[in-house]
Amino acid sequence: MDAASAPGAGGSGGRMSPPVPRIVIVGAGAIGAFYGAILQRAGARVEVVLRSHVDIVRARGFSIDSPMGDLSYRPAAVHHIADAATPGADVVICCVKVLPEVDRAALIAPWLGPQSAIALIENGLDIEPPVAAALPGHPLVSALAFVAVSRRAPGEIEHQAYGRLTLGAWPSGVSAEARDLAAWFEAGGIDVKCSASIVRERWAKSLWNTPFNPISVLADGADTVTLLETPGGETLARAAMTEVMAVAAADGHPLPADAVDRNIEATRRMPAYRNSMALDYRAGRALEVDAILGNVVARAEALGVAVPRLHTLRTLIAMREREAAARG
Amino acid sequence: MDAASAPGAGGSGGRMSPPVPRIVIVGAGAIGAFYGAILQRAGARVEVVLRSHVDIVRARGFSIDSPMGDLSYRPAAVHHIADAATPGADVVICCVKVLPEVDRAALIAPWLGPQSAIALIENGLDIEPPVAAALPGHPLVSALAFVAVSRRAPGEIEHQAYGRLTLGAWPSGVSAEARDLAAWFEAGGIDVKCSASIVRERWAKSLWNTPFNPISVLADGADTVTLLETPGGETLARAAMTEVMAVAAADGHPLPADAVDRNIEATRRMPAYRNSMALDYRAGRALEVDAILGNVVARAEALGVAVPRLHTLRTLIAMREREAAARG
Repeated sequence: MDAASAPGAGGSGGRMSPPVPRIVIVGAGAIGAFYGAILQRAGARVEVVLRSHVDIVRARGFSIDSPMGDLSYRPAAVHHIADAATPGADVVICCVKVLPEVDRAALIAPWLGPQSAIALIENGLDIEPPVAAALPGHPLVSALAFVAVSRRAPGEIEHQAYGRLTLGAWPSGVSAEARDLAAWFEAGGIDVKCSASIVRERWAKSLWNTPFNPISVLADGADTVTLLETPGGETLARAAMTEVMAVAAADGHPLPADAVDRNIEATRRMPAYRNSMALDYRAGRALEVDAILGNVVARAEALGVAVPRLHTLRTLIAMREREAAARG
Repeated sequence: MDAASAPGAGGSGGRMSPPVPRIVIVGAGAIGAFYGAILQRAGARVEVVLRSHVDIVRARGFSIDSPMGDLSYRPAAVHHIADAATPGADVVICCVKVLPEVDRAALIAPWLGPQSAIALIENGLDIEPPVAAALPGHPLVSALAFVAVSRRAPGEIEHQAYGRLTLGAWPSGVSAEARDLAAWFEAGGIDVKCSASIVRERWAKSLWNTPFNPISVLADGADTVTLLETPGGETLARAAMTEVMAVAAADGHPLPADAVDRNIEATRRMPAYRNSMALDYRAGRALEVDAILGNVVARAEALGVAVPRLHTLRTLIAMREREAAARG
């Protein structure tokens, strides 16, 4: 797949149809299943690799209820994570949670051929280096999803709103692989922003996620209205966001001076919102603490930037997890 | 009761016996019941004012199991909080939790006569001003208890260890009332440190309590070993204690330069310890957040001292309480 083969370039006027790319999605939870539907709708061959509920998805495919219409689909193949892999995908898209105990490179590797690109649709900062280091020589596309999706039951996804992707080559630039993938997502009906500075985009998203996700967990899963209405809450959120700004600037990615104000104002305009880490916490699922918060604190420490509030949040969450583990 | 009437001054060599003071203890949970036992053992007339379990305590008195021996006793009178009060106590000792919804002055007032002293055996900082403002003209003794006691059942107290009191006149000095009360406690077998600077003593105790209590709550009730063994835990504890040091110094009560080191070392020497706020949290009881933490943050803000970690802790606890209230 190269730029000339993107779906927008073919299918009309007697020009050659673009070759159909083989896309393997590793981890098809709500996010992976949703973006797989978009790609299949665009005409790609979509395979998924699952850890659980393989039989259900093989039998029924994914049922996806969406404001975009019914996005239900049957992937071209449904693999179990322990099955023998078929290497040589054009793109392997990784949508698994970024957790210390999950070796994402090991999950991606079996599906690669010499020419395969890798795309990560995952949250957080500094989530690319372990994959890039373990799988050198493969073009790496890094993507942020702005989407509200959740899984209602095995194979049943609800797409509530949004869907936009921001993507670019990692560590920077807009590669042919990034442009091609963007074209396939756009052909499937999704807005895509190609960015030449995906690390900066990650910092911009971290500005909100890095403070609000852990604060919400420590507030026992409280929503945004509760967080901001508590005395001291907006002050804490602003101060923690300002710490993220300082680390981003020291990392070479200064964010706009009014970014904190604009994020707080946007949060105040939202209805009460429970973020993904709060939902994971309430459901007893593992939390992406390192990707969202720990990597920012580590970078702050490496750059010599003081982040007392972020450090406090990270340590308190680590204490909670240790206490939970001790209680079993 | 004045200095000459303290118990050590009488009872031998044909001198006049000291008059027996009438002491009313408002709030006889574990702490109040324990110190009442000490005073009654010294020969004072001890009355208690209870909110609950009046019938049980009237029928059986307090059962107190202690390394000092059996401290069980029947108070001279057991009053319910709603009963008509008999004013004119020599000393009214308040041992109720310091909570925003509890008007301690209103609980103390009915038992006072024109000459009555007031003593507070309670934790926290700036817990005296509301009582002093509402009940002017009464000598005020402020006391810190270093004691491990807990209530096993209504009227049944277990004294595990310690018992020392540090007390002084509030806001400063060692008044005759402070010396007298100290003498009665000492006569009952308790070590007492009379301090001319009880506010400084409160700062010294806050150095540990102000960070460790809320950190433990936010860590879901974790003990000291868990807190210090978590990566980042000791760093957080030290940094938060250093913030308390800065506020204390700005308030005119500088603590020794090695106070943080010494407190951390002492904490590391202790067996795993769950502090009182952690126990209250786990039992679903109200937390003395304002007395222990909020008043320190308020004083920091009034004095212009930056306390990012303490502010974060206070706000997170407030968010938790708001979230819990919203869930009902």
